[in-house]
Amino acid sequence: MKSVGIAILGFGTVGAGTYNILAERKERIKEEYGVDITVKAIYVRNPKKAITNGAPQELVTSNFDDIITDSSIDIVAECIGGIEPAKTLLIESLKAGKNIVTANKELFAKHWGELEKYASKTKAGMYFEATCGGGIPVIRTLTQAMQANTILQIKGIINGTTNYILSRMSDEGASYENVLADAQALGFAEADPTADVEGYDASYKLAILSSLAFNKFLPAELIYREGISKVQAEDIAIGKQLGFTIKLLAIAKLIDGKIEARVHPVFLKNSHPLASVSGSFNGIFIVGDNVGDIMLYGRGAGSLPTGSAVVSDIVFCARQIEHARYAEISDVITKQDIISDFTSDYYMRMTVLDLSGVLSQITSIFADNNISITSMRQDAGEGVVSIVLVTHKSSENNIRKAIKEIESLSEVQKVNAVIRVEK
Amino acid sequence: MKSVGIAILGFGTVGAGTYNILAERKERIKEEYGVDITVKAIYVRNPKKAITNGAPQELVTSNFDDIITDSSIDIVAECIGGIEPAKTLLIESLKAGKNIVTANKELFAKHWGELEKYASKTKAGMYFEATCGGGIPVIRTLTQAMQANTILQIKGIINGTTNYILSRMSDEGASYENVLADAQALGFAEADPTADVEGYDASYKLAILSSLAFNKFLPAELIYREGISKVQAEDIAIGKQLGFTIKLLAIAKLIDGKIEARVHPVFLKNSHPLASVSGSFNGIFIVGDNVGDIMLYGRGAGSLPTGSAVVSDIVFCARQIEHARYAEISDVITKQDIISDFTSDYYMRMTVLDLSGVLSQITSIFADNNISITSMRQDAGEGVVSIVLVTHKSSENNIRKAIKEIESLSEVQKVNAVIRVEK
Repeated sequence: MKSVGIAILGFGTVGAGTYNILAERKERIKEEYGVDITVKAIYVRNPKKAITNGAPQELVTSNFDDIITDSSIDIVAECIGGIEPAKTLLIESLKAGKNIVTANKELFAKHWGELEKYASKTKAGMYFEATCGGGIPVIRTLTQAMQANTILQIKGIINGTTNYILSRMSDEGASYENVLADAQALGFAEADPTADVEGYDASYKLAILSSLAFNKFLPAELIYREGISKVQAEDIAIGKQLGFTIKLLAIAKLIDGKIEARVHPVFLKNSHPLASVSGSFNGIFIVGDNVGDIMLYGRGAGSLPTGSAVVSDIVFCARQIEHARYAEISDVITKQDIISDFTSDYYMRMTVLDLSGVLSQITSIFADNNISITSMRQDAGEGVVSIVLVTHKSSENNIRKAIKEIESLSEVQKVNAVIRVEK
Repeated sequence: MKSVGIAILGFGTVGAGTYNILAERKERIKEEYGVDITVKAIYVRNPKKAITNGAPQELVTSNFDDIITDSSIDIVAECIGGIEPAKTLLIESLKAGKNIVTANKELFAKHWGELEKYASKTKAGMYFEATCGGGIPVIRTLTQAMQANTILQIKGIINGTTNYILSRMSDEGASYENVLADAQALGFAEADPTADVEGYDASYKLAILSSLAFNKFLPAELIYREGISKVQAEDIAIGKQLGFTIKLLAIAKLIDGKIEARVHPVFLKNSHPLASVSGSFNGIFIVGDNVGDIMLYGRGAGSLPTGSAVVSDIVFCARQIEHARYAEISDVITKQDIISDFTSDYYMRMTVLDLSGVLSQITSIFADNNISITSMRQDAGEGVVSIVLVTHKSSENNIRKAIKEIESLSEVQKVNAVIRVEK
């Protein structure tokens, strides 16, 4: 039987999950997959802490040379997170010809191309199922199940923290600030929640998924990004009446050879399969030209789901260790390949003075900008009127221009919210 | 670049879809996956018909020896369906050391073990993604993404015809007979619909999925099976009021080392992710001990979705053709390993005479059989009362015993419906 040695870098949530699963399932993996996988080393900065958290003392090291020079280590599983020292350690591993498995979406999204260069020199494999969607086999699906398809669209709920916050805001009618504070207290959101709530995390994952889907690297900075921190409880409540669910969606589309890539809050029609993906669950909707619509759903984070994805990559790599590579992308998507003026339906809420003629001015601005309205409602308040409307498919640039013009009207107090609508 | 030769057996819906995708994507597959795949032969009984349907004349043969003796053919993709001649042709192919890809669920469910013996002799690979769930990558998920998990449950909507019929019955309030006739006219159901509507097709697929999930062959005949032909519009309507959606569900569970496997109509709680899988779509819900709940969703049938799965297997196999095997199961699940007295919640509707004391007799029968009631409602008609009730989790055997006793009461006209409830 083939014997394969593993080093785990980091012993936090994911590293510990990976170690525990490998220890617990060693015999089952031998029996079912014909490979004998042994953890040879656990690399951490603070050995004492790792040992306290359950890492066996004899495996723990804080000297990375122990790993590089150990020829019995075939696979390095990186579960540290962040850019450094993870990046340097993975590059050293690849240089030494060791296959790498990583759960690090930020690092992989930003430096995949660079890692790829080192990997191709030594023919080491790179596996990264755990970077996107936790235990959901989305990378496996894109690389091992969509060979017959040109991927036309990816739409994903791929950040559990924001989905948890939006689901609770929606269920409880609570404000963003209150739910965020509670999510932080419960450990569902970080003390500094920026990476999640401003959509950075989702944009890293979308960059990885899109690169595989379109077979060209998509730099995360080319993705249009808008977070959830401005989403208001009032709009969620109105959206519900209109048959919409609020979600932070990561969207990538291939249109006439160009790429549209964006992360922002949307109103999803309740009948869309992604609309029922709630709480900390993730869901990824993929459209292929032959397979049509498929969707994958599951836990997007957590020690065991993410550890499950890391272990899956380890076994997948271990079984084909002689020719372990699977993604060899060389082209890069540039700004010229990106559609920045995308089209969408739009929901808008604005507050205007209760004066005659206002509505006619607003509708004529829409008409001048080629925006047609699907539905509109007005609610009168004290001297002001709240207008809620949904447009037909419109150009993003036209919408922005129209909003600027509307905001410049003296009778308009405020454009309170603009939310894109996905059907 | 590696060159791989393919023979396609059969040129019906799936065979033609497979051929067309391979022809159209040849260059893309070379570029993205590094293998040059060429269709060398199309084997059919009736060459004229295949050529009329678009098969290139120079590839078509009705002589199977042409395929067996052609050493440039590495993979035989069987798209005929049914047991014979498909079985004999696949065995001949395996004997000749050719890898096989098949979309044939009935054949594979019934004869996997036998095919495995031939395959293991010549070390030929067997790939069967297209047998279950059309274009949904469920086989890939179970074999390549769940290595870190003991699979605890599979619940699937895996027959498009019955899901289409039940969805339309539910949407339109129509009877089974009317919707079936219409589905037949539209080509969504066969002239003889038995295999679909009586749950055979779903049981074959469940046998394949369970065998992979539990790493032991599950013979389809050990699966408890009940079709949809007795589902009544009235119960669907009442179920809606109770928050349930009707589905034909294929369920397999691992409980204390034993297997529960069944195909039958269920009332699914509307909040369950599978409840919104409607029309001809399929959905498969998998619970792993580490990954938790995942769900896969997509088109379960059709020329291109199923062709997409066949082509995916062909590329998957072609890239690892030197060691192409992936499922080596030897154990078989026997009757002793099966839990026949499973537990479930139950919905029941019965018609009783409008006499005092009837209800007390019925409820005491339930109590005697350890069945407790969650909710009950009565609707009086002309001299009769319709009773609808939902139980807490109960044993199947106790339910059957209770129904027998209730039916024997002279005041009970009929137990109209018994539908298991899944949460």
